[in-house]
Amino acid sequence: MHTFLPGRVVFGAGALERVGAEVEALGVRRVLVIATNSARAAADAVQTQLGDRFAGRIDGVAQHVPTEAAEQSRTQARESNADAIVAIGGGSAIGLAKAIALTSSPQQSSATGGATTEGSVGGGGVVVVAVPTTYAGSEMTPVWGETAAGRKSTGVDLRVLPRVVVYDPMLSRGLPVKVTAASVANAIAHCVEAVWTPKADPFTEVVAAEGLRALAGGMREVLATPDDLDARGKLMYGACLAGSALATAGTGLHHKLCHLLGGTYNLPHAETHAAVLPQVARVNASSVPQAKARLEAALGTTDLAAGLFDLFQAAGVPTSLRDLGLTEAQAEEAARTFQPTDNPIPVTEGLVREILSRAWAGTRP
Amino acid sequence: MHTFLPGRVVFGAGALERVGAEVEALGVRRVLVIATNSARAAADAVQTQLGDRFAGRIDGVAQHVPTEAAEQSRTQARESNADAIVAIGGGSAIGLAKAIALTSSPQQSSATGGATTEGSVGGGGVVVVAVPTTYAGSEMTPVWGETAAGRKSTGVDLRVLPRVVVYDPMLSRGLPVKVTAASVANAIAHCVEAVWTPKADPFTEVVAAEGLRALAGGMREVLATPDDLDARGKLMYGACLAGSALATAGTGLHHKLCHLLGGTYNLPHAETHAAVLPQVARVNASSVPQAKARLEAALGTTDLAAGLFDLFQAAGVPTSLRDLGLTEAQAEEAARTFQPTDNPIPVTEGLVREILSRAWAGTRP
Repeated sequence: MHTFLPGRVVFGAGALERVGAEVEALGVRRVLVIATNSARAAADAVQTQLGDRFAGRIDGVAQHVPTEAAEQSRTQARESNADAIVAIGGGSAIGLAKAIALTSSPQQSSATGGATTEGSVGGGGVVVVAVPTTYAGSEMTPVWGETAAGRKSTGVDLRVLPRVVVYDPMLSRGLPVKVTAASVANAIAHCVEAVWTPKADPFTEVVAAEGLRALAGGMREVLATPDDLDARGKLMYGACLAGSALATAGTGLHHKLCHLLGGTYNLPHAETHAAVLPQVARVNASSVPQAKARLEAALGTTDLAAGLFDLFQAAGVPTSLRDLGLTEAQAEEAARTFQPTDNPIPVTEGLVREILSRAWAGTRP
Repeated sequence: MHTFLPGRVVFGAGALERVGAEVEALGVRRVLVIATNSARAAADAVQTQLGDRFAGRIDGVAQHVPTEAAEQSRTQARESNADAIVAIGGGSAIGLAKAIALTSSPQQSSATGGATTEGSVGGGGVVVVAVPTTYAGSEMTPVWGETAAGRKSTGVDLRVLPRVVVYDPMLSRGLPVKVTAASVANAIAHCVEAVWTPKADPFTEVVAAEGLRALAGGMREVLATPDDLDARGKLMYGACLAGSALATAGTGLHHKLCHLLGGTYNLPHAETHAAVLPQVARVNASSVPQAKARLEAALGTTDLAAGLFDLFQAAGVPTSLRDLGLTEAQAEEAARTFQPTDNPIPVTEGLVREILSRAWAGTRP
């Protein structure tokens, strides 16, 4: 079973210039612009393009969509009669836009179910146009999140799925190599895990393999020439596919382990992926032989787990949880407390301990 | 630029059993069942599943959606208060369902534009659930067609895009090898042409290459074992991808040539593809080197045009227009009257003559 999610993707160096025309084609009238700090110049350009449609601006966004920030932004959207948001930035800027869209449609309650078909796109409320500046892939998913009192709630609702995504590689050209590498590791995790989640299917597998091909190729090129526009374009294309794969396959063992580590021990999100993914691939890959072969061809390796590890090492992303500040006792505690999840091989405490102890030490698979 | 079209795909041997549950999940109340002649038994099963929701039946459908048949079916849909149609069959059955859906939504006029984003899915009118029994791929596209006084009008409207497609390989298991091969040739043409139309993009290219891989592999297996369920499943999966590729890439030189030959000289639709496609691939492929390499890898060949020709020959589909009844003078006339179209290399009368004279003679590329 596979659900094709709707959306329009515009792609190309200089595509930022077309945001105004894309907004116009949506038939919306009042547009709020959300921009992450590094995207202020891009937001200025969009503001000019919007002309009379410009309805306000939110500069600077906090991580994980704090509920106070979401409420404040909702008030601003309501008071300015906004019917659209252009969000320029990474997952946090796009996440804030999604938080507004989620509660903007009066005729529907804010759905929180697990089905990707809940709600309808747009649905009469505020629509989102996303202009990503990193490789997080959130712009391709109907997943929203909001954090109150240190706890993050997440859900799936089609109303938060951006109607248009404008990928302009120019906007990520200046992203430092270290940040790039971590963001790419995050995107690669979406592609790899997408082949073995409970919702994995052949369509998603094709998208995921192509995403990995683009991300690994782009990453190698960026290491050689950080501001190469073709390489940055490959990474954005890969991020788009990674986000699509995540949107349809959902998450599994790997993401749930990263979520536990991030939530309980405050480890950095993107880097944690790089340490954990090769170890989960090591135990899972042989259970999905066709997907393994596809991903290995995409990565240019004959051993998926080792190939991922080597790529992350070459990119300078930490491949051990120890380097991220986790203690061995915490890794052990995490293995004890982790709740089993659907996976191609049974998730025993022993399996989780094996994954986490290798991820902690940074042992090459 | 790429537009992701929405839709839900359910896949698997025996999936026919789930049509009732899928209809229920859509929240519709009155369902009209359209069934091609060979699908009467399947339609009986669906009718039972629908229970109280069953609102009527149309058995047997004509090719190319004659306008009289469309009008009669619209009346039946209206009089039975149908808000959904389950269409079981090939392109003609699904085409009739689309014709009803197109005019069922009072709040919108029947759009005929070329944009795939026209209208909204469902849009308050009759929604379509498609259960394909061939490999035409029409179930994945928002393209509709209707024939009045010998002239076929076509258009694109999101309201005709099926909301759910149920692929059950059991339903195509008995399709004779000759019919299978022609239907597969048609689907392969969607995949190959999708890489060089004016709307071609990298996303569609990936879908098209995967579609070709499945279709060529499935075809070879069906030739060896016609009722092999895995092989039939591969063909349906390939047809789904082929339809998706057609939906986003649209048509180009190859389809326009086939349309001219079919419309003017009444050549059979699917078989014409097999004769023309290798010759168009011969002249176009080197202009799209990356796509050429991808399609060749998918087909398992080092020469796309010759590989296609050989596959069609092995499958017993005529690879010359002469064998389909076209005269040499008609081929020459078609070359003279063909209207140039957007193409990677300029479409001169000389180029069209070269394509058609080789397609007429069935010369291996």
